[in-house]
Amino acid sequence: MPVIDLLDELSPVGRNPRTGGYDRLAWTGVDAECRLWFEQCAEALGLDIEIDRNGNMWAWWGASFPGSALVVGSHLDSVPSGGAFDGPLGVASAFAAIGVLQRDGFTPRRPLAVVAFADEEGARFGVACAGSRLMTGALHPDRARSLMDNDGISLAEAMTGAGRDAAALGRDQERLDRIGEFIELHVEQGHLPSSHGTEGLSVPIGVADRIWPHGRWRADFIGQQNHAGTTPMGSRRDAMVRLASVVLAVRSAAIAQGALATVGKILVEPGAVNAVAGSATAWIDARASDEAVVRRVLEAVRRETGTELTEESWTPETAFDASLASKLAAELGNVPILPSGAGHDAGVLSLAGIPTAMILVRNPTGISHAPEERADEADADAGVSALADVIRSRTTLAA
Amino acid sequence: MPVIDLLDELSPVGRNPRTGGYDRLAWTGVDAECRLWFEQCAEALGLDIEIDRNGNMWAWWGASFPGSALVVGSHLDSVPSGGAFDGPLGVASAFAAIGVLQRDGFTPRRPLAVVAFADEEGARFGVACAGSRLMTGALHPDRARSLMDNDGISLAEAMTGAGRDAAALGRDQERLDRIGEFIELHVEQGHLPSSHGTEGLSVPIGVADRIWPHGRWRADFIGQQNHAGTTPMGSRRDAMVRLASVVLAVRSAAIAQGALATVGKILVEPGAVNAVAGSATAWIDARASDEAVVRRVLEAVRRETGTELTEESWTPETAFDASLASKLAAELGNVPILPSGAGHDAGVLSLAGIPTAMILVRNPTGISHAPEERADEADADAGVSALADVIRSRTTLAA
Repeated sequence: MPVIDLLDELSPVGRNPRTGGYDRLAWTGVDAECRLWFEQCAEALGLDIEIDRNGNMWAWWGASFPGSALVVGSHLDSVPSGGAFDGPLGVASAFAAIGVLQRDGFTPRRPLAVVAFADEEGARFGVACAGSRLMTGALHPDRARSLMDNDGISLAEAMTGAGRDAAALGRDQERLDRIGEFIELHVEQGHLPSSHGTEGLSVPIGVADRIWPHGRWRADFIGQQNHAGTTPMGSRRDAMVRLASVVLAVRSAAIAQGALATVGKILVEPGAVNAVAGSATAWIDARASDEAVVRRVLEAVRRETGTELTEESWTPETAFDASLASKLAAELGNVPILPSGAGHDAGVLSLAGIPTAMILVRNPTGISHAPEERADEADADAGVSALADVIRSRTTLAA
Repeated sequence: MPVIDLLDELSPVGRNPRTGGYDRLAWTGVDAECRLWFEQCAEALGLDIEIDRNGNMWAWWGASFPGSALVVGSHLDSVPSGGAFDGPLGVASAFAAIGVLQRDGFTPRRPLAVVAFADEEGARFGVACAGSRLMTGALHPDRARSLMDNDGISLAEAMTGAGRDAAALGRDQERLDRIGEFIELHVEQGHLPSSHGTEGLSVPIGVADRIWPHGRWRADFIGQQNHAGTTPMGSRRDAMVRLASVVLAVRSAAIAQGALATVGKILVEPGAVNAVAGSATAWIDARASDEAVVRRVLEAVRRETGTELTEESWTPETAFDASLASKLAAELGNVPILPSGAGHDAGVLSLAGIPTAMILVRNPTGISHAPEERADEADADAGVSALADVIRSRTTLAA
């Protein structure tokens, strides 16, 4: 089935009618519907379905074949009001590529799996790539279980509610040993400089060779909750005002340092029109091509606002397997090579020592994490052909 | 029963264990528990309970007596994580004062009612004093019914869920005709200049003679939701950054103009750490001793930030009945007279032409709309005595 038709089958799931985007947060009812779609895709192709200890989904073609596995796929969850392609395009393209190979009468000589990693966006519990990080051991299962969503529900409770065994979380050595290579197809995000000298992809597909260093920091502000109509301006300790200063300082510092830095999520309490805010929290996302630049942004924010910043996560620059990236780019017709500003499960697996690569599919708007995220049908089909070629060349002989 | 004991009975209801404040939002299950407490207080005193078309609760002593009624009371709802006294102190003091009078063998010669107005804070649906404004006609029932809370539940749905008939909302002329005077006892909020030359009350009780002009405005920001890790700083339209500028402009303008202005409530979408905000809303609360000063604050914010501000509510200065205020102050022992920076149901009734006064009970912290709101037991008892005296002197002869 063409990849666009597979995505069409998924498109009603978690659609936000107000924004036109998708709310597919981990371990919700909507997430369960996405997982059902994964199972139906796998069954239609005769693949064997497996859910691992950390909630990641696998669909195997030739699980019993000798040799290490070639794994393709991505994730199905989204940010709130996210786009249709970030994640699902990679999973649907993997199923579509297997459909192409099966129609051609091809049989792999080594095991092949489609994966959908759990909770990639971290939109609900705050830690991105939770499923893959649990698998590699980069996220400790105790910390994962105790992560809380905005409603005070822990990851452990949410997974239990979804029928998973939260006690089983943790590093999955046997599975890691089995993965020979991981290739993640993903929609392009932003229009970053490519090896062809263009800003973003000028052709349908490209290859990513690395992920920028990136992290998340939290700033907590304690004020004195009070009546908005009776508290003199001079005696206020207003957590909202301090938060606003940090939002502006983050932007200024990012511009000054040539980085990307963002406050996208905040909490303010009590959140009443007629009450001075008693406490507030801001989360800062900061990235750049170079770790030192990111550190300078945070230092400037600390210095200018006198705010303590708590590091919630940090991922150093992740270079994918260099020979794999250039080999892939050549093999796919000398396509451009780009960095990725966004983090991915591919980065997590790469840090764990698994040879990893990413195929990017052109995004005409460049917009991602938003309803305006796009991939044209012809470009998506080119992504499926590329993935089918890559699978064919890598599974013809046992690894 | 002493007023502190009555408040103790109410104290477990809606208590937020994390903050030590109270979450008693209108037409919730917690609100229903507050209403049950009101009924129990009234029954213990043999008063007749009535709930009017707009959801306000009344407890009558001598409903059938001739003449217009003296009404005392306040409200029971709170802001999120609010204090224990703002509202409940006035209702509990009214019941305690009736208890004192009954023990003294006193019988009023005109009807007397204790009232608890519905939804005074407007913390859930955004319009303060909704119950009293509906009664006087200052809030149109169609607008009231369509007000939405943050979960998309309308006031009409919430009232229906609480067993009320939302179709019956609206101006209650018969009831208005029946109210001869309304006296609201309330905890002091802030330490505003008093007629005794002090900042705030230096004695247990005082009288408020007017409410500052005040209003609420909404600022809506439309940005372009996008990926925080891939969108260049120069091409962003970040709703969070515009919101932060307005928060700081509101504070600067308030200080420059000698007003009080606050952003206490905001909404940011999608609210994800790794997404540039696509839209945001800030609510501005602004007040001053003079309407022109409030208007200058808003004009400065509009001019400096280029932001359109939508007026959600506006209440001009409300002077209570001047002779009633000075008579009360003299009668209670030449107690200080102060303005109120906060809005009250007493202001709504005064605007509707009902002679109205407010008795204030000293607040040692001055803090309100927060867990640190306080009234000492001796001061609260002084408030009950004052209210009993006022009731006695005003109900001894039929009005």
